[in-house]
Amino acid sequence: MKNPIGIFDSGLGGLTGYRALRRLLPGRTLLYFGDTARVPYGTRSREVIRRYSVQDANFLLSHGVCAILVACGTASSNALDLLEQTFSVPFVGVVAPAAEQAARVAENGNGRVLVLGTSATVATGAYERAIHALDPKIRVRSAACPLFVPLVENGHTRKGDVAATAIAEEYLLPHADFRPDAVLLGCTHYPLLAEVLSAVLPGPVLISAGEASAKAMASLADSLPPSDGVPSDAFFTSDDPTLFRREASRFLGAPPDAPVHHVDIEKY
Amino acid sequence: MKNPIGIFDSGLGGLTGYRALRRLLPGRTLLYFGDTARVPYGTRSREVIRRYSVQDANFLLSHGVCAILVACGTASSNALDLLEQTFSVPFVGVVAPAAEQAARVAENGNGRVLVLGTSATVATGAYERAIHALDPKIRVRSAACPLFVPLVENGHTRKGDVAATAIAEEYLLPHADFRPDAVLLGCTHYPLLAEVLSAVLPGPVLISAGEASAKAMASLADSLPPSDGVPSDAFFTSDDPTLFRREASRFLGAPPDAPVHHVDIEKY
Repeated sequence: MKNPIGIFDSGLGGLTGYRALRRLLPGRTLLYFGDTARVPYGTRSREVIRRYSVQDANFLLSHGVCAILVACGTASSNALDLLEQTFSVPFVGVVAPAAEQAARVAENGNGRVLVLGTSATVATGAYERAIHALDPKIRVRSAACPLFVPLVENGHTRKGDVAATAIAEEYLLPHADFRPDAVLLGCTHYPLLAEVLSAVLPGPVLISAGEASAKAMASLADSLPPSDGVPSDAFFTSDDPTLFRREASRFLGAPPDAPVHHVDIEKY
Repeated sequence: MKNPIGIFDSGLGGLTGYRALRRLLPGRTLLYFGDTARVPYGTRSREVIRRYSVQDANFLLSHGVCAILVACGTASSNALDLLEQTFSVPFVGVVAPAAEQAARVAENGNGRVLVLGTSATVATGAYERAIHALDPKIRVRSAACPLFVPLVENGHTRKGDVAATAIAEEYLLPHADFRPDAVLLGCTHYPLLAEVLSAVLPGPVLISAGEASAKAMASLADSLPPSDGVPSDAFFTSDDPTLFRREASRFLGAPPDAPVHHVDIEKY
């Protein structure tokens, strides 16, 4: 294991990014930290989110990572600037890559993007700004979807799930007449709700911020210090590794095939 | 302000206990601490919950409280013994008072109690043990209701709410044939769902752990050092006071009519 890439998220949602990166960079070790003891970040103040994000990066750097994927919409939109100022390794967040993908879809359509995110992510306006920096003519609407994370974490993701559908209708239907070309899933949990979302609002392209960011990190890989081509992944969690292992299957499609270790994140 | 009573919770749910105690003890100052930067406690290890609880009590004692209501199911079931050993003021938790009320109802009925709680609270079996300590013949079933807290925190509490009703049905209907006399709401958020719960499972008496503990504290009041009869409440939060003020309305029925201060709880 040489020059691993680190990934962190407030919990398990970032595993959608891990999974994509694992596929894109088969010869690179990936170290994943999920801050499951302090999840969710989305309801916390900016100051707390920034402090937690620095601790998360610090921990991954203590394991020698050469780059960090911030696979958390809340941390990306609230703390990426601070992380880049504080540390010298390159960071890739979920905002810019997903914004680029959404802008491309909108430019080939009617120029409209609907951004879904946690309350904290939507409040920052980060996705909207990133899209407008690429093309100020694109019309962007945002919807805070605070119940999507707990729904996903409790397995309410199947098409036809009554509770998930009712909540998706509440969040999405007010934007149906906006007719977005793309719905940007600005939280790494949301791709698991893809079938529910497409049933409630059929038509727009769904863009996964986790996958977009994994592609952006993969395109950086050639400029990173070399790996030894022998991947030896590990997962770290601030809560119970047994719980992590069990819940991770939802996001990975199978139980994690690498060790899961406990971390006392408050020490970093 | 003389000899205030302290109340702490991992977040805002304990405000249901505050509200009840405010009504029961009109002449006593109440100081409420909500550890919103570290909420939820329910997913943390016992060791961490105990450390946090001692910090929370320490903070309230630094403001001269003469008794403490632990208005948090997780802290009550994991740390009450440690708090009582560490500090000399009296503590009241939420488990014993609610268990007593539930046992009384069950003894006058068919001897059956359904306990609802977070996954962590249900896993400790604390309510079940407390009920059986009073009357081993009472039959107790428990149901973990992990989505109730996020539903309440996002305002899905009205009778007829489609999502809340679907989720309540998922949690409660498997226990309909158990025909409980009492449903013990073992988490201080749950009383806000009372109308939804009664619609899904009509019949049983709903017992609020927050209210039961407030009554237990009120009955202690005569044995506490005297107050000066001029209440001057204050709220403290480890996260953003503006957020606390806004969210607290859900639990209080109106915005808090006392100041909300920020506390750096890690210092205690």
